[in-house]
Amino acid sequence: MQRIDALIHPKWIVTVEPRVVAETGLSLAVDGGRIVTIAPPDEVRKRFAPDVVHERPGHVLMPGLINAHCHAGMALLRGYADDLPLEQWLNDRIWPAESRWVDRRFVADGTRLAIAEMLLGGTTCFSDMYYFPDVVAEQAIDAGIRAVVGMIALDFPTAWASSADEYIERGLAVHDRCRSAPLVTTAFAPHAPYSVSDDMLSRIRRLADELLVPVHTHILETDREVIQSVAATGKRPLARLDALGLLNPALIGVHATHLNGEEIERLAEVQANIVHCPRSNLKLASGACPVERLQAAGVNVALGTDGAASNNRLDLWSELELAALFAKHVAGDAQAVKASTALEMATINGARALNLADETGSLAPGKAADLICVELAGPGLVPVLDPISQLVYSASRDQVTDVWIAGARLVSDGTLTRMDMAEISTTAHAWGERLTAT
Amino acid sequence: MQRIDALIHPKWIVTVEPRVVAETGLSLAVDGGRIVTIAPPDEVRKRFAPDVVHERPGHVLMPGLINAHCHAGMALLRGYADDLPLEQWLNDRIWPAESRWVDRRFVADGTRLAIAEMLLGGTTCFSDMYYFPDVVAEQAIDAGIRAVVGMIALDFPTAWASSADEYIERGLAVHDRCRSAPLVTTAFAPHAPYSVSDDMLSRIRRLADELLVPVHTHILETDREVIQSVAATGKRPLARLDALGLLNPALIGVHATHLNGEEIERLAEVQANIVHCPRSNLKLASGACPVERLQAAGVNVALGTDGAASNNRLDLWSELELAALFAKHVAGDAQAVKASTALEMATINGARALNLADETGSLAPGKAADLICVELAGPGLVPVLDPISQLVYSASRDQVTDVWIAGARLVSDGTLTRMDMAEISTTAHAWGERLTAT
Repeated sequence: MQRIDALIHPKWIVTVEPRVVAETGLSLAVDGGRIVTIAPPDEVRKRFAPDVVHERPGHVLMPGLINAHCHAGMALLRGYADDLPLEQWLNDRIWPAESRWVDRRFVADGTRLAIAEMLLGGTTCFSDMYYFPDVVAEQAIDAGIRAVVGMIALDFPTAWASSADEYIERGLAVHDRCRSAPLVTTAFAPHAPYSVSDDMLSRIRRLADELLVPVHTHILETDREVIQSVAATGKRPLARLDALGLLNPALIGVHATHLNGEEIERLAEVQANIVHCPRSNLKLASGACPVERLQAAGVNVALGTDGAASNNRLDLWSELELAALFAKHVAGDAQAVKASTALEMATINGARALNLADETGSLAPGKAADLICVELAGPGLVPVLDPISQLVYSASRDQVTDVWIAGARLVSDGTLTRMDMAEISTTAHAWGERLTAT
Repeated sequence: MQRIDALIHPKWIVTVEPRVVAETGLSLAVDGGRIVTIAPPDEVRKRFAPDVVHERPGHVLMPGLINAHCHAGMALLRGYADDLPLEQWLNDRIWPAESRWVDRRFVADGTRLAIAEMLLGGTTCFSDMYYFPDVVAEQAIDAGIRAVVGMIALDFPTAWASSADEYIERGLAVHDRCRSAPLVTTAFAPHAPYSVSDDMLSRIRRLADELLVPVHTHILETDREVIQSVAATGKRPLARLDALGLLNPALIGVHATHLNGEEIERLAEVQANIVHCPRSNLKLASGACPVERLQAAGVNVALGTDGAASNNRLDLWSELELAALFAKHVAGDAQAVKASTALEMATINGARALNLADETGSLAPGKAADLICVELAGPGLVPVLDPISQLVYSASRDQVTDVWIAGARLVSDGTLTRMDMAEISTTAHAWGERLTAT
C-alpha cells in the first residue's frame, strides 16, 4: 500500500481533457500536491493508504476555474460607479478614485478580498493587472492561490511608477521575487495599445521573449480606441501590435469586442490568446467578442471577470454561463458555445493562455491538484438529467463545497480554511466608509 | 400598545414604490398578513407589541420577486435538451417528451419542485402556463405561494384537453375553484398566436373581459412566427391580435423579441404588458426584446424565467441582473436599464402585468406582506458602496434568508418551513431516472 495525502470519491468526475464529460465510478488520488491517478474506487482503495478520504456522493469533482483577467485590488470599488459608459466610467469615476486612494494598503486589502471571493467560488488561479504587483504577489502567496501577476506598464505616472524605466524596473523586480514562489508567475501587462507607447511595447516584447512570460493587455475594447489609433498611427490597434512583433503565442489579449474578420484570421495564424469578459462587456456596453468565430478559426479563448468595478462579481461561474448564453445571441445560433465549450473556456483554455497548461486546467496524473467539488443538490439542481448542463446552466458559485490548490485544502464545506473572513469584511467595510464619505 | 404579528428591523429597506432607494432607519410592522406601517424603529417599538421580532442587521428588506412567466411543471425537464434552436428544441425534444410524460403526477411533482426553487430564491408570486392548471393551483395553495394560474388553450389535443370547448370549460372550472383561494388567481393562457385559432382567441377575449382576468400568451418569439403569420393571414401576429381585440391592458405578451417600431407604439397606446425572459431568449437564440425602447415608449415590462427546460433556472435574480446587462448591449448604451429599473421590473412591474399591483410588488401600508430579506455579506458583497447596485450586480438568490407571503413565513434562514425538501428531491431524482432511462 502506497501512503498518499488524500483520496476523493465524487459522484461524477469531469477531467476536461481529453473531453468534457461527466464520468461516474472514478476516484482521484492526491499526493505531494499532485494528482497521482484517476481510477475506479475499488482499485485506488486497494493501492493507496490515504491520510484523508473525502466522500462526495452528490458532487462533481473538476479542475479549479481560471480567471484569466482581473484587477483584483478593485474589489474595494465594487458598485462605486454603475450604469455608465466605459470612457465616462474610467475618466470621471475610476481613474480619479484610483489616483486618490490606490496605495500599497488599498491593493493589499482589495486583493485579499478578491482572493477570498474567488476561492469560495472555485477559482484556483487568477491573472492580475493592477498597480503594486509586488503586493498582489504577496497576497497570493499568503493565501495559497495560484496567480499570474501582471507587471503593469503605462505611459503616465501612477502611485506605482513614474516613468517607462521605472515601470520596467519595478516589474522585473517583482518577476525576480516570484521565482521562489511555486504558485506565482508573472506576465508583462502593458495596459492597452492606447495607453502604452511603441517604445515601451517594443521593450516589453524583447523582455517577454527573454523571460518566456506572457504579455497581458487590453485590446479593442471600444470602437473609439480603433478610431483614435487609426487617426494617430494610421493603423488599427492590432496591426500596430503586429508591427511591433507582439502578435505571437505569448499574447493574452483581453476583451477584443471590435475585431474584424482579417484580425480573427491573423490571431489564429499567430496563435495568440483572447480573454473574453462577457459581464464586463455587457455592463459597459463595450460590444461583443465574436467568441464562436474566434473558436471556429482556432483561436484559444479563455474567460475573465475584469475588475469588480465593472462586473461586479469575480465569479467564473457567472462568466462561463454568460459566455454560453451571450454567444448564442451574438452568433444567432443556439448551438454556439455549448455547455462543454464554456467549461473548457473557464479551465484548460485559461491555463493555455497563461502558459500553465502543463500544470493546471484539467485533471490528469502528474498535474497539480487544483481541484474543486460542486454539489448538484437543492431544488434548482435536480433532477440531474445532464451534469454538464447542470454545471453550466443551473449551478452557481454557491454550489462549490471544496477547493484544493496544489493539494492544499483552501475551502472546506464552503468555508475558507486559511483566510480570516471576519478581518477581511471589517477591513472592506472600513474602506467602504472612506470611499462613500467623500 | 397594539398587538401585531411581527416587527422586522432590517439594515436597509427598499420599498420600490414610490422609488427604488435603499433607506436606513426604518422598520416594518406586519399584522394579519398585511403591512401595517413602515416607520423608524423607536416609533414602532413604542406603538406595537409584536409576537415576533426579526432583527436583520446586515439585510435588505424588500418586496418578494414576481415571476411573470413560467411553465413550473417543466422543472423536471431541466437540462433535458440544451444548445438547440427553439423550433428543434420544441418539435424534436420538448413536445415529444411532454406527450409521453406529462400527466397530473408529472405536473404536481414538477410544480412542487419549481415552487421550492422559486421560494428559496425570493420569488413570492409566479404566473404559470402549463397543462393541468388545476394541479398547479393545488400545489400553489398547499405551498402558500401567490400564483396566477394559466387557463391554457391550444389548437391541438393534449393530456389536458382535446378540443377548443374542453380547453375553455376545464379552464373555467379552474377559475371557479380558485375563487376561494386568497392567493391564487387565474389568467387565460392561449399558448401563442401560431398555435391558437381566431375563434378560440375571440372567445377568450370575451371571457377575459367578463371575468376581468389577464390574457397571458407567448408573442413574437421567433422571426419564423412572423413570416408564417404573414403568409397564412396577411397580418403580423400582433396585428392579428389587435384585429381580434386582444391588444388591451389585460394582455401579458411574453418574449416579444421581434417587435418593430410601430408595434412598440401600439403596445404603449393600448397599455399592454410585456414579459421579458432574457435567459430563455439568449439560450434559444430567439433575439432580443427591445426593453429600453418599450420602456421609453411607456410600456410596462415585467420579467419571467420561462420554463426550466430553456433557462435552466427559475431564478428572478438571474433574470433581473441579465435584464440590466443585456439591455445595455442591445441599446448600445451602458445607461440602459439601470439597477433600479431592473428591480422595478422584477417586482412592481410584474404585479402590474398580473393585475395584482394593489396587493403586491412594493412595500406600503395595507398591501400584502410579500417580503424577502437579502443579506449583503460575504466577500462578493462587501464593501456596500451602493446597496441597490449590490442587489442587482453582485447578489444572487443565495443571499435570500427569509421569505414571507401574505405574512406567512415560508423561508427562514434559507430553509423552507412548510415544504419537505427531502421528499421533493427524492421525487425529482425518480423522475430523472425515468426520463434518462429512455
